[in-house]
Amino acid sequence: MPVITLLTDFGLKDGNVGVMKGVILELCPSCEIVDLSHQISPQNIAEAGLILFRSAPYFPSNTVHLIVVDPGVGTSRRPIAARLGDHFFVAPDNGLLSQIYHRAIEDGEPVHFYHLDNPRFWRPEVSHVFHGRDIFAPCAAHLARGVSIHSLGSEITDPLILPSDLPAKTNFGLVGKVIHVDNFGNISTNISQEHLADHQKLEIITPTARIEGLLKTFGERPASSLIALLGSTGSLIISEVNGSAADRLKLKIGDRIEVNWIA
Amino acid sequence: MPVITLLTDFGLKDGNVGVMKGVILELCPSCEIVDLSHQISPQNIAEAGLILFRSAPYFPSNTVHLIVVDPGVGTSRRPIAARLGDHFFVAPDNGLLSQIYHRAIEDGEPVHFYHLDNPRFWRPEVSHVFHGRDIFAPCAAHLARGVSIHSLGSEITDPLILPSDLPAKTNFGLVGKVIHVDNFGNISTNISQEHLADHQKLEIITPTARIEGLLKTFGERPASSLIALLGSTGSLIISEVNGSAADRLKLKIGDRIEVNWIA
Amino acid sequence: MPVITLLTDFGLKDGNVGVMKGVILELCPSCEIVDLSHQISPQNIAEAGLILFRSAPYFPSNTVHLIVVDPGVGTSRRPIAARLGDHFFVAPDNGLLSQIYHRAIEDGEPVHFYHLDNPRFWRPEVSHVFHGRDIFAPCAAHLARGVSIHSLGSEITDPLILPSDLPAKTNFGLVGKVIHVDNFGNISTNISQEHLADHQKLEIITPTARIEGLLKTFGERPASSLIALLGSTGSLIISEVNGSAADRLKLKIGDRIEVNWIA
Repeated sequence: MPVITLLTDFGLKDGNVGVMKGVILELCPSCEIVDLSHQISPQNIAEAGLILFRSAPYFPSNTVHLIVVDPGVGTSRRPIAARLGDHFFVAPDNGLLSQIYHRAIEDGEPVHFYHLDNPRFWRPEVSHVFHGRDIFAPCAAHLARGVSIHSLGSEITDPLILPSDLPAKTNFGLVGKVIHVDNFGNISTNISQEHLADHQKLEIITPTARIEGLLKTFGERPASSLIALLGSTGSLIISEVNGSAADRLKLKIGDRIEVNWIA
Repeated sequence: MPVITLLTDFGLKDGNVGVMKGVILELCPSCEIVDLSHQISPQNIAEAGLILFRSAPYFPSNTVHLIVVDPGVGTSRRPIAARLGDHFFVAPDNGLLSQIYHRAIEDGEPVHFYHLDNPRFWRPEVSHVFHGRDIFAPCAAHLARGVSIHSLGSEITDPLILPSDLPAKTNFGLVGKVIHVDNFGNISTNISQEHLADHQKLEIITPTARIEGLLKTFGERPASSLIALLGSTGSLIISEVNGSAADRLKLKIGDRIEVNWIA
Repeated sequence: MPVITLLTDFGLKDGNVGVMKGVILELCPSCEIVDLSHQISPQNIAEAGLILFRSAPYFPSNTVHLIVVDPGVGTSRRPIAARLGDHFFVAPDNGLLSQIYHRAIEDGEPVHFYHLDNPRFWRPEVSHVFHGRDIFAPCAAHLARGVSIHSLGSEITDPLILPSDLPAKTNFGLVGKVIHVDNFGNISTNISQEHLADHQKLEIITPTARIEGLLKTFGERPASSLIALLGSTGSLIISEVNGSAADRLKLKIGDRIEVNWIA
């Protein structure tokens, strides 16, 4: 059964997610449609890109990921599809696929982008304001039901790819930043397992706290302890056991996080 | 694969949406169930009717739309089903289907209503407080699996239909009102493409702003511009480019919107 | 078609619910996945247990209920599966299944628990912080696709079961408490139909109000009336007709509710 995931900033109230699902089911009735998130902050491409990057790998081969966070709808920004590794992606060409792209390159996986310029696969009337319904959803549905990605449009070599947002090296360790705060108030950073390499001893400095050492899991400390550990996708995260580190430390996206090796 | 859409004011926390899905899947295991919205403001029939009106047309023929916004549950208000155009609807008889009905009439489509008075298609025990679970969900599931709508109850000719809420003509143009504010803060009105006809030049007057002319899309003006355009369902909408017009203009449902033709 | 329900405290923004669905669909592509709720208050086992207790009975036989509210992830708390009545349950061993268990015992239904200690059915790499993805979701998917529950791990007889939270008898009636407030502000209590037995006349005393008698449904009183009735799952509930009793009475989970028989 083909799988399509949806990731948007539409929220769940207005019915627009449902509308895209209606369009998909008309074209691909056997599709399994899975919501990744519809609560991306309005027009926040970085946030959507991060959630896609973290979620997509857990889906079966040939899953079609449909992402509509589209501040440039109706302008000349291109609608695109991509084959990255063994998954498909359909999105506006605004950088949403950057992180997924960088990983595919690192892993030596196939990388192909296409401009969705074949109107045969769009809805017959295309509005100026809702390409999610009129272009992206139908193209994703056609991909899911087996239409070749080559048919949907011309291959391109210049998609908009944003640079990786990696931590910087310092004399003492690394400087990175907060990239996400989850539902529990866990703070995640752009510092990953591989950046920490084999440094066994380290301290993490935030604007308002200092944490020494990395734990394996929440249960090693009592409730209300402030701890650092590697999250489920390999990022360095800062947590409060059974509480919200984000509330406690008042940290937000972009705030500075320093890691120092301890000799 | 039969499709059932769900539209309620239940919210997503309490498990009641899940309960209706359980009831549906027991009766119609092959159903595809799609959420339109569960975040209708409690008991707001107008809001639910509008979202249904805007979303339903994008679903395949024979989709069953199940709507439970039901302030009169347990009173003498009837549970009903309808065939409007090529879709089915199951809902309390409280006006929820009015807009869909008016459009079907305008489009010369078939229009049939039924009182769900055949208890053979209900759950064996019917509570006084949750007909969504006990009457509406099972009737929708039976429709989806192919039971004839005639079997579910007696045809009726007097469903509760609310009058269309159309803009009024003035000496200078039209007076309408705000009918929805979406997740992005776009303000939509009861003034549509056809009311504007071939008036090329117009101004839109809200209690706190004046906008001249209609654009095609957001990208024609820089970020933070206040603009008017036709939304994805043909309504006149007022937007702030990459921002929230609702926050900026402090407009809410029901507020007056004037359109004047410019000579 | 096998059905899996999901109940978590993950919220809908972060993509983690989607990740679990991806893991499930890889192992069991024909699964129908239904969300019960993802808006359980963080780590609130009692709330999740209540929603499970109220929702599960409406699903088809052999439904697999997957519950991840897991403050002890990464500690020695066991991952478990259970066969209770004709449903399956997969969850951390932290009391989540207590209410379902008590009902199965009362109803004389089969009750079996298993420690998910066979890593063959886990994801190959198990993180210390997301067993929902790495242990619970794959085990639920294997159950749904027909793997025997015995294969998933060793039968155990000592799952963590919390005592029933029943109302206490007084000289004049009962003392119970608020256990849930729903999306409409209806207040539900741990006092049920069977505790009220055949007492026809009663009064309900909250810290700020007194209500005499039980109604059958909302429609028996005009809007804004404060009423008591039996909810859709048989609990005594306190409601405001077309309004929010919770807002009006400022009641919250745990607050005292007294019922006195009237001679």
